[in-house]
Amino acid sequence: MIKVAAWGTGMMGQGLLGYILDRPRDIELVGAIVTNPAKEGKTVGELVGRQCDVRMTTDSERVLAENPDVVCVCTQSFLHEITDQVEPCVRAGANVLCIAEKLAFPWASDPEWADRFDKLAKEYGVSILGTGVNPGFILDALIVMWTSISLSVDRIEAQRVNDLSPFGPTVMKTQGVGTTVEEFERGVADGTIVGHIGFPESIYLIARALGWKIDRIEETREPIVTTVERSTPHVTVAAGDVAGCKQIGRGYTNGELKIELVHPQQIHPEMEGVSTGDYIRIFGDPEVNMATNPEIPGGKGTYASTGNYIPLIGAAPAGMLTVVDLPLPRFWAPSI
Amino acid sequence: MIKVAAWGTGMMGQGLLGYILDRPRDIELVGAIVTNPAKEGKTVGELVGRQCDVRMTTDSERVLAENPDVVCVCTQSFLHEITDQVEPCVRAGANVLCIAEKLAFPWASDPEWADRFDKLAKEYGVSILGTGVNPGFILDALIVMWTSISLSVDRIEAQRVNDLSPFGPTVMKTQGVGTTVEEFERGVADGTIVGHIGFPESIYLIARALGWKIDRIEETREPIVTTVERSTPHVTVAAGDVAGCKQIGRGYTNGELKIELVHPQQIHPEMEGVSTGDYIRIFGDPEVNMATNPEIPGGKGTYASTGNYIPLIGAAPAGMLTVVDLPLPRFWAPSI
Repeated sequence: MIKVAAWGTGMMGQGLLGYILDRPRDIELVGAIVTNPAKEGKTVGELVGRQCDVRMTTDSERVLAENPDVVCVCTQSFLHEITDQVEPCVRAGANVLCIAEKLAFPWASDPEWADRFDKLAKEYGVSILGTGVNPGFILDALIVMWTSISLSVDRIEAQRVNDLSPFGPTVMKTQGVGTTVEEFERGVADGTIVGHIGFPESIYLIARALGWKIDRIEETREPIVTTVERSTPHVTVAAGDVAGCKQIGRGYTNGELKIELVHPQQIHPEMEGVSTGDYIRIFGDPEVNMATNPEIPGGKGTYASTGNYIPLIGAAPAGMLTVVDLPLPRFWAPSI
Repeated sequence: MIKVAAWGTGMMGQGLLGYILDRPRDIELVGAIVTNPAKEGKTVGELVGRQCDVRMTTDSERVLAENPDVVCVCTQSFLHEITDQVEPCVRAGANVLCIAEKLAFPWASDPEWADRFDKLAKEYGVSILGTGVNPGFILDALIVMWTSISLSVDRIEAQRVNDLSPFGPTVMKTQGVGTTVEEFERGVADGTIVGHIGFPESIYLIARALGWKIDRIEETREPIVTTVERSTPHVTVAAGDVAGCKQIGRGYTNGELKIELVHPQQIHPEMEGVSTGDYIRIFGDPEVNMATNPEIPGGKGTYASTGNYIPLIGAAPAGMLTVVDLPLPRFWAPSI
């Protein structure tokens, strides 16, 4: 039995709790830490609609006193937002799996911060790993895996085309859905339209695995302008307005484009003949031309992948790790 | 510098030697062992059309006395055929990478033999790994990687559709190309038409990674009957005769089909509208539906993959290993 605690019980945290409850003979859930006091004292079972008497609590110290082997942190995206969660876990001797996009390769946003995590984890003999589908799998680890059958790799192009229709008002806002083109440009400029978080992390993960020195990263965000009206329960977009955000990340070595990641996110892409999927092209010898249809779902894939690292993180060396440092990941079949 | 020796200088061995020569600052080629005495004394440079003064030799002892860190064995397919190559390498303290299909998961064909390899490798503190594209990557390790974003995996279906047109008379014979349907059935029955070697290995590799207990494996070989004349420089197939072999491997748990691998190999598949590619479907939550077009080339991918494990095998634990026991594989970029 691996002792696991969950930190964060939003959509991703709830998905992860479901994963944990699917493995009653493998995982002992020793606690569920919430940040919202309104959830205090309710059971995990009530939250996820299953049988589980563990009570959610804001008292992280009490949960960490249970000595979990692994804490899964499903809260926020940026390093400064998760530090007060990750560090106490490490000091309590727990390995940390965390879906914060910036933790997939923390040296991309703050090398000193990343080194501090690394030092602390080594001091306590545990590992910290940033997990998720994107970053963490589809546009980095999977690409790395594909390069393993290559004699040479000149350049990598990958694209993730997805459908934002199922998402709520927050995502519509951060992706600029429903704005005019002018509003979109303003939102990108003032940082209210952020688009996808994780391209520098994915680019550096690939570079770390392949030993490439990426010396410049560019990111652009362009409006996806619709020619037809598109709508969801949360937003209606008139023809000529913005149905989504097409984000491009590029990594260069000495001015040469090595990695290009493209991520157009919009509502109802099918209304203009766009089908969703993940696409990887590796230019080299041999060439690789891979597609999935539809795209791997980001939410489900993220908490599944995080759960599937639970049995792997315990055997990993201490420190701030990345998915390309670990063994080939795989589905963890529940013991019956 | 990693000291590497090559054992076997056929098509695969030559490809691997090219890979090695691409990395003059990373790999020292300490020897090239040949089985064909006619090659004795010629240089690797002459063989592969590049600059390299290492002379090929049948004297394996002399090469192993150079203490290679890794020996890449590219000779044959079956355990009994490679044992006299693998064991001396192990006794010389070298890690072994070997493209023999049966070594990808040697417990499939002979558990005692596999355990003997494992014991010997542990005794000498080295690792043995079976490598290649199929088995070794496309229908096993890559599938395992894909399952890592799964909440549940019910069943796996994968297919590799390729074109045999570039191959010579030996492959035509072992795949039954150019035979009548009757001759094909007879060839399968008497073992002269072998088809693809490696399905039990791929099935058990997946099962090992996922913790599945596969209790029965079935293999079938069916003729691919052409409706039009197809020909290559080595064979002409009349309409109504056999243009290739469709092989299917199935793995069951308690009578339930868990893994189905399909591999139709034929000349000129495009003449009847068949396009080549690799296809993976994972039935579970979420579903995965992946395709590559065209298929990853088997030969090039096999020696590339083997070379790319050179820097990984040194850090692996001692014993008889499999690709699902190792870290996420990746292209090894040559130092400049």
